[in-house]
Amino acid sequence: MRARLRPGLLLRPLDLAGTGLFALQGGLTAAAAGLDVFGVLVISFVTAVGGGIVRDVLLGDTPPAVFRDLAYPVTAVAGGAVVVLSYGLVRDVPRELLLPLDAAALGLFAVVGAAKAVDHGMSPLLAALLGAMTGVGGGVMRDVLLGGVPLILRSDVYAVAALAGAAVTAVGLRYGGPRVLMLAAGFAVCVVIRLLALRQGWNLPRVAG
Amino acid sequence: MRARLRPGLLLRPLDLAGTGLFALQGGLTAAAAGLDVFGVLVISFVTAVGGGIVRDVLLGDTPPAVFRDLAYPVTAVAGGAVVVLSYGLVRDVPRELLLPLDAAALGLFAVVGAAKAVDHGMSPLLAALLGAMTGVGGGVMRDVLLGGVPLILRSDVYAVAALAGAAVTAVGLRYGGPRVLMLAAGFAVCVVIRLLALRQGWNLPRVAG
Amino acid sequence: MRARLRPGLLLRPLDLAGTGLFALQGGLTAAAAGLDVFGVLVISFVTAVGGGIVRDVLLGDTPPAVFRDLAYPVTAVAGGAVVVLSYGLVRDVPRELLLPLDAAALGLFAVVGAAKAVDHGMSPLLAALLGAMTGVGGGVMRDVLLGGVPLILRSDVYAVAALAGAAVTAVGLRYGGPRVLMLAAGFAVCVVIRLLALRQGWNLPRVAG
Repeated sequence: MRARLRPGLLLRPLDLAGTGLFALQGGLTAAAAGLDVFGVLVISFVTAVGGGIVRDVLLGDTPPAVFRDLAYPVTAVAGGAVVVLSYGLVRDVPRELLLPLDAAALGLFAVVGAAKAVDHGMSPLLAALLGAMTGVGGGVMRDVLLGGVPLILRSDVYAVAALAGAAVTAVGLRYGGPRVLMLAAGFAVCVVIRLLALRQGWNLPRVAG
Repeated sequence: MRARLRPGLLLRPLDLAGTGLFALQGGLTAAAAGLDVFGVLVISFVTAVGGGIVRDVLLGDTPPAVFRDLAYPVTAVAGGAVVVLSYGLVRDVPRELLLPLDAAALGLFAVVGAAKAVDHGMSPLLAALLGAMTGVGGGVMRDVLLGGVPLILRSDVYAVAALAGAAVTAVGLRYGGPRVLMLAAGFAVCVVIRLLALRQGWNLPRVAG
Repeated sequence: MRARLRPGLLLRPLDLAGTGLFALQGGLTAAAAGLDVFGVLVISFVTAVGGGIVRDVLLGDTPPAVFRDLAYPVTAVAGGAVVVLSYGLVRDVPRELLLPLDAAALGLFAVVGAAKAVDHGMSPLLAALLGAMTGVGGGVMRDVLLGGVPLILRSDVYAVAALAGAAVTAVGLRYGGPRVLMLAAGFAVCVVIRLLALRQGWNLPRVAG
């Protein structure tokens, strides 16, 4: 019999890595939108922790992790602070590096959210849904706060990638797949779909002619 | 002594009917706003389940029903898929049919939300408030995500109808009225107010001259 | 040994005072935005209770206080009704009076939110964060519903003041400071920072040149 890893053991460092990446990316968007120092910190914070808060509130696991573990807010604020302190440098980081990093954060959040949902006894398909919401939640809040229509509603393959990766992890874990492998597989699926979509310019058709 | 129906027994099919109707209506709005296939599915999903999620999170009944019972997401996605697959047909459904269907979904969500709140021991007035929020919550999320001011803030008799119907059900149940009758009465009150308001063009005055 | 006050004993009247002030202020904003009678009531309600709902949902203390205690919705609706019934008078209340009242409501919500978080065992820094979110949450919802970028993202010293006040209360309570004094100190810090910022026209620099 294989011993089962403690649920949080692997999830926390991955969650923190995604938190930092999303904070950086949210801060860049906010700075480009003309916000001041505090506004940039707020938006980077919301982008970084919004998805996890949604996940934990929907799971009934309150207070959300971000309010129980100082490492989350510290990481989120640190990501925002990097943008504030060296915007000139961060702004010039090429898209070719930023977009894969964002895809990685999306994948991390999606598979971690899905795994946590499975740990809470949710069925795989619903866990995949919650994982996808974990992945895109922070970005949706960011876009709503900045007054725009969320990007995920315009650039479809973003949320689809999160959903696909989360589904792989959720189904795999549910049917007894090894934890590390199922997390890695879901992550890879999400990142590959997202990067392929970016490179190939994939887009779905509009519904209304 | 009259036997009390199991709380969920009647609520679930009604909840599912409202879910499908709201998904259809949310999908139509999203398609008309120019979203692509996935965006239409997301908005129809949010419109359909947003109110119920708000209800369950506020009641502390987590994970929300939509994450415990596959029938909800399946119904919501099915409603969106109908729009995607046959937008040309659905678009031509006359307003005279769509608006009553939307009023019916509003009424269903409002009375089901109010009944669930009473089942959780909430006082009738607060249960009415929660019922109204269940009814309008999905539409508010839809409008915020599409970048606009929620319709309920402009067309007042929508939320007022939900509040009135929810109040009838909540007060009736609290004072021992028969469950089916109280649900039906609240539903009828909501639908009648909403349809009268539409037919008569009722509007409340602005506050600022 | 000093007897500890019952947590809710002092918090409730303060919470209610803040609720009424925010309802008034939210109603004024909504009326100025051209909403009708019902829209003004909804926005004043959301502004007044939004922060407390966020606080209680994140603490897992559901249903939120506003759904357990009729005094909250009654106070919130009363604040909105004052605006509806006598907008001409309320509109002419000078900014010199309204802004300090708003600063007071912000301070009340921030310190009450922080104290409740400490009561729930949250660490001081995280309790400060939750207190600040309690203070600004209603206003953020108001601005998002009215279709704009939340004011706190533009006028930075608003949320900073809430955060500072909440931090004073949270740290003080955590290290055994007397409850009333710590609430008063945090409140004073928030209000003084906010009013100084208004008087001096403090603003933080933008990040992007």
